[in-house]
Amino acid sequence: MLLHLTTWPEVETYLSDSTGIIIPIGSTEQHGPTGLIGTDAICAEAIARGTGEATNALVTPTIKVGMALHHMAFPGSMSLRPSTLINVIKDYITSLARHGFRKFFWINGHGGNIATLKAAFAETYAHLADLNLPNADQVQCQVGNWFMCKSVYKLAKELYGDQEGSHATPSEVAVTQYLYPEAIKQAPLSEDVAKGYPIYGAADFRRHYPDGRMGSNPSLATPEQGKQLYELAVKDLSNSYLEFLNQT
Amino acid sequence: MLLHLTTWPEVETYLSDSTGIIIPIGSTEQHGPTGLIGTDAICAEAIARGTGEATNALVTPTIKVGMALHHMAFPGSMSLRPSTLINVIKDYITSLARHGFRKFFWINGHGGNIATLKAAFAETYAHLADLNLPNADQVQCQVGNWFMCKSVYKLAKELYGDQEGSHATPSEVAVTQYLYPEAIKQAPLSEDVAKGYPIYGAADFRRHYPDGRMGSNPSLATPEQGKQLYELAVKDLSNSYLEFLNQT
Amino acid sequence: MLLHLTTWPEVETYLSDSTGIIIPIGSTEQHGPTGLIGTDAICAEAIARGTGEATNALVTPTIKVGMALHHMAFPGSMSLRPSTLINVIKDYITSLARHGFRKFFWINGHGGNIATLKAAFAETYAHLADLNLPNADQVQCQVGNWFMCKSVYKLAKELYGDQEGSHATPSEVAVTQYLYPEAIKQAPLSEDVAKGYPIYGAADFRRHYPDGRMGSNPSLATPEQGKQLYELAVKDLSNSYLEFLNQT
Amino acid sequence: MLLHLTTWPEVETYLSDSTGIIIPIGSTEQHGPTGLIGTDAICAEAIARGTGEATNALVTPTIKVGMALHHMAFPGSMSLRPSTLINVIKDYITSLARHGFRKFFWINGHGGNIATLKAAFAETYAHLADLNLPNADQVQCQVGNWFMCKSVYKLAKELYGDQEGSHATPSEVAVTQYLYPEAIKQAPLSEDVAKGYPIYGAADFRRHYPDGRMGSNPSLATPEQGKQLYELAVKDLSNSYLEFLNQT
Amino acid sequence: MLLHLTTWPEVETYLSDSTGIIIPIGSTEQHGPTGLIGTDAICAEAIARGTGEATNALVTPTIKVGMALHHMAFPGSMSLRPSTLINVIKDYITSLARHGFRKFFWINGHGGNIATLKAAFAETYAHLADLNLPNADQVQCQVGNWFMCKSVYKLAKELYGDQEGSHATPSEVAVTQYLYPEAIKQAPLSEDVAKGYPIYGAADFRRHYPDGRMGSNPSLATPEQGKQLYELAVKDLSNSYLEFLNQT
Amino acid sequence: MLLHLTTWPEVETYLSDSTGIIIPIGSTEQHGPTGLIGTDAICAEAIARGTGEATNALVTPTIKVGMALHHMAFPGSMSLRPSTLINVIKDYITSLARHGFRKFFWINGHGGNIATLKAAFAETYAHLADLNLPNADQVQCQVGNWFMCKSVYKLAKELYGDQEGSHATPSEVAVTQYLYPEAIKQAPLSEDVAKGYPIYGAADFRRHYPDGRMGSNPSLATPEQGKQLYELAVKDLSNSYLEFLNQT
Repeated sequence: MLLHLTTWPEVETYLSDSTGIIIPIGSTEQHGPTGLIGTDAICAEAIARGTGEATNALVTPTIKVGMALHHMAFPGSMSLRPSTLINVIKDYITSLARHGFRKFFWINGHGGNIATLKAAFAETYAHLADLNLPNADQVQCQVGNWFMCKSVYKLAKELYGDQEGSHATPSEVAVTQYLYPEAIKQAPLSEDVAKGYPIYGAADFRRHYPDGRMGSNPSLATPEQGKQLYELAVKDLSNSYLEFLNQT
Repeated sequence: MLLHLTTWPEVETYLSDSTGIIIPIGSTEQHGPTGLIGTDAICAEAIARGTGEATNALVTPTIKVGMALHHMAFPGSMSLRPSTLINVIKDYITSLARHGFRKFFWINGHGGNIATLKAAFAETYAHLADLNLPNADQVQCQVGNWFMCKSVYKLAKELYGDQEGSHATPSEVAVTQYLYPEAIKQAPLSEDVAKGYPIYGAADFRRHYPDGRMGSNPSLATPEQGKQLYELAVKDLSNSYLEFLNQT
Repeated sequence: MLLHLTTWPEVETYLSDSTGIIIPIGSTEQHGPTGLIGTDAICAEAIARGTGEATNALVTPTIKVGMALHHMAFPGSMSLRPSTLINVIKDYITSLARHGFRKFFWINGHGGNIATLKAAFAETYAHLADLNLPNADQVQCQVGNWFMCKSVYKLAKELYGDQEGSHATPSEVAVTQYLYPEAIKQAPLSEDVAKGYPIYGAADFRRHYPDGRMGSNPSLATPEQGKQLYELAVKDLSNSYLEFLNQT
Repeated sequence: MLLHLTTWPEVETYLSDSTGIIIPIGSTEQHGPTGLIGTDAICAEAIARGTGEATNALVTPTIKVGMALHHMAFPGSMSLRPSTLINVIKDYITSLARHGFRKFFWINGHGGNIATLKAAFAETYAHLADLNLPNADQVQCQVGNWFMCKSVYKLAKELYGDQEGSHATPSEVAVTQYLYPEAIKQAPLSEDVAKGYPIYGAADFRRHYPDGRMGSNPSLATPEQGKQLYELAVKDLSNSYLEFLNQT
Repeated sequence: MLLHLTTWPEVETYLSDSTGIIIPIGSTEQHGPTGLIGTDAICAEAIARGTGEATNALVTPTIKVGMALHHMAFPGSMSLRPSTLINVIKDYITSLARHGFRKFFWINGHGGNIATLKAAFAETYAHLADLNLPNADQVQCQVGNWFMCKSVYKLAKELYGDQEGSHATPSEVAVTQYLYPEAIKQAPLSEDVAKGYPIYGAADFRRHYPDGRMGSNPSLATPEQGKQLYELAVKDLSNSYLEFLNQT
Repeated sequence: MLLHLTTWPEVETYLSDSTGIIIPIGSTEQHGPTGLIGTDAICAEAIARGTGEATNALVTPTIKVGMALHHMAFPGSMSLRPSTLINVIKDYITSLARHGFRKFFWINGHGGNIATLKAAFAETYAHLADLNLPNADQVQCQVGNWFMCKSVYKLAKELYGDQEGSHATPSEVAVTQYLYPEAIKQAPLSEDVAKGYPIYGAADFRRHYPDGRMGSNPSLATPEQGKQLYELAVKDLSNSYLEFLNQT
């Protein structure tokens, strides 16, 4: 159930049954010469919607621009500063907590968001405790990174081995190919691709990862693999969400 | 062309031709008993995409949660505080200005965003002037409110007269019906509907507009009218965007 | 009644009768070769005082430096950033709301303040709702732009026609001439004056409006016209204030 | 010369001669049963204008609401939070430094502003050093507290002895009586008046200083004394300003 | 070499040889009935000093209060909000980067700091890129969590097995016993200790971890083990620091 | 009693007896060619610990990096911006106030911190009043500047006369010599040393005080004098703390 396709009386009814909600968060950043700039948001949104359907959970709109400052030396990348993103996350949770939501399940498509998400949760729990909201101390956030689901990780390793890499990976590219077959891109990819160098600032990143890939070979991706990966992620995260709801 | 479905080399190529970009912004807020919570974001996004196609312009992802603090007494409404939204807008423009974009055309679906957009533009122009960006003084933002396009306004008046109202209007509901026919909602709507009272805080808003509508009768909406309104908006805003690009 | 010329026991007494207060806000910015830098603050302050006298309302000190970032390429212009001004407005309202004021009537002399005022009101209503103030949900702000009063607008059109323009206008200059006849300035004014170009950043503004005027001919102004305009503004805004007080 | 009564070309001319400017800052806060709420702003503004006339210096508009959080338990008191006031001061200086002003002489009427002024200066010097302003490292701020001028202090001691106290003092009340004889207030003042207790929060302040005075007997004030004190302050601060200008 | 025990000319000399620096960061928070509130800061500081000695690196003062909002329901715990800590980290790095430091090695004693550190690094790299600092793009931060060093982790598992737990662990308590034998505490510890429950807000944390421990049995700790763990951490982190310096 | 060497149950017990706590704050900044960069933090920390022992008061960890922006042109100096430091102070007080602490005695080693401390206290009192903390209006902060204790000041004058100066003073250097005899530094000191020039920005400071000293001759310092000064400071501040506790 998408929050955007419901009415306020429908949300009111939903809240009488459940205080859980799913929030997708991605990023808008370069994904190498062939990966879509929207990869992380596209994957998170689709998997969140699948998870919402499988669990009858409400799904909010996706935060599409996340924390991608280290990708800013590539055209088209967009980023919030961490301090901005913390306030966005705080405003999302606070808005929904005022209506009675208590269990926030964040489906995340971008490793670079994780630190800021966690910092924001801590900031928000403390903020909510100072408001006059009943049961504010029951607000809980959990992050589900689809690309770190056990089954996803296992299949990616089987399919791509070392060529999975860590950015602009064939697995995430495959999911976008499954979802947007009309937007499959071709470009020459050097066989040599940098890997293993840590992430610092944007200029430094581009010096070390000149085409944007980090150790990955996205040319291995196919839409069929994308479908498999998508379905595994939805299954795993649906289980995680239901466990999270039932945790007391 | 959707930024999310392009690669960074494609954006690089685009920038050699044009420094213009379209940014849709909506809201996630109650739209009365039958209007979708996503109405403002849905309309802005679709019309921005249409405008992008008509003008070969790049379209960024939509800011889906805007400034809707006055709707917060209705379940499901979400809002950024103006101070948060200013930083989001500043980060969007600054990100893109670093790549060379200079003409930012904001397609807006929510009246409540306008003040914060304007405040953010002023804050951002001054911020950019202090960075070491070439031609930062050429950054320009323009807002296109689809619901205020002349042709749209005229048709809405013809179709709905006084029952257009000013929130949860039949015209915006019609556009969402055209775009999401599977999500057309039915609910009893009282004939009497409050109107004309100014907007202050959330509790006050709900006291005066108890079902969320402001003077509107959204039951008049049809998907066919939505299609007409959508097409008029795309046409008008395409012209506006092209004029904006050519303005010197 | 000027807040600055009262004592705290007098304010306590006032509050037993009324929760309304008038806050003037202007700007400190270039007004062309002959307009005073203080024009917007001078007009707002004088008209607010007149309105306060006519309605027995308390008038706070004037916010004299507003949002004028686009005028910053002209010597002597001063501006708060919108994010600063939002906090100033929030602190003004919160201070007064703690004492029991609930109806805030802002008499504004500068178009560039309007967006930030509205953003600040929204931010503040939500902030107040989280404090432990009784009846915080009854706090209401209204803006009265003296230069947009119907009677003022009408007279300005009659007197100056197209030469009224939109910045450094003969009408506002006339009001300052009425109030400060000793500070009437003379300077050669080119007959050609730019107009109709939108407002972006400061450098861009000065490129398009090289002497600071926007389509106006302030040499038409006289102190006598200023008196007329002043009196019309006071009359209109006094009515607006009283209606605002009585609105429930 | 009042900035508000000049035009931008006049400021341009002024800057070719001097980079000095005077900024008055006061407060809007209770001053006991008979002192005006505007006392600190009224005194600072008048003395700054006098100093400006005596030294041919430009005088900006007055910051009328300062840091008075400890007075907030008395009706009519207004305050900026220190964090807000820091940004206001930073915006004032930054605005003027962009035009070429380098010597900022702050004439202050309120002890409670001093700490925040100093904190703001430090914040601003560091901020300016990161901008691309020529000679930003020559920006200098100095505070002239009129009530701490040696000659003023000496006369106050002669006139009022121990009954000068430290808030709502006869000396500051006298200056307002000189400036606004029409607003001289009468009210019974208890002979016993608290003194010597430190300043913490607002509720604590009122518990210890129930009528708002701190050890003072403002009934001793006369307009004639006010004139003397005013003239001494102007003389002392004029000297200070000129020395400040000449300091290298 | 401790920054605090050097002079500025000594730092100048140091910088001609190395641009590396070590910054310890800990926390001030409950560590169960017997663990010291300073545990995380004490361990980080001592290990950082040892690492500095082993590598001739300069060591700054320790950030002793970190991000511990989830421990705030236990007396004596202190925390910065993540948004505050981000600014502290940004100010530390920016201060030192102005002098020419480029390699920042953070020795961290508290898992709860990691997310905020990472968010702060991203915020700071982007901030530095906008300043006029030469080679700002060479600023790099790395975190060394002493408790996650391989050798430390291995020994802790050997010594304590499952009773190591994840907060108020015998390994960190042992290190503090080695460093402060005079402050070894005794208190009854229930054998049953909660574990495995995620961390949300402070009240929720205390409900689930009533004595503050998370799955640990700190009574197993001895000063001798602490010495071993300390030495392993210093050795591992010294290697990490030197590799970090040499990384290009 | 050092907070860092206690457990949370010990703090709980302490709070049943006393709501007072001592917080040391220093700075990390150049202290001339021979003074330690940590001088201000070292002195504040040692004197705070001595005061805590003498009065059975709990002592928190030291804020070691304070407000030293004006020293930033000398290698090794570190500073928080005042706006950051205000938040740090606010978070310290708020953390401890949640546990029941009400009397905060700040032992300060750096003149440059005083303004920001005072601004932060005002900001924090007002912040606390809006939380749901019992007796938040009893929170009180007092600053004890060890170098301004009467007995310390007197002895310094006796020992050093005019050569005490105002930065990198022999008295503070002596205290660090007493505490860290192994870190006594030698360097040629010019006899001529600038003095009396006010403090503005960092570049200006270094231009006027080229070796970092302000009118001082730290070569006069001896460890024995340091011991005397330390003991006087502890005695004076112990009395101040006890008076502060007893003040009602």
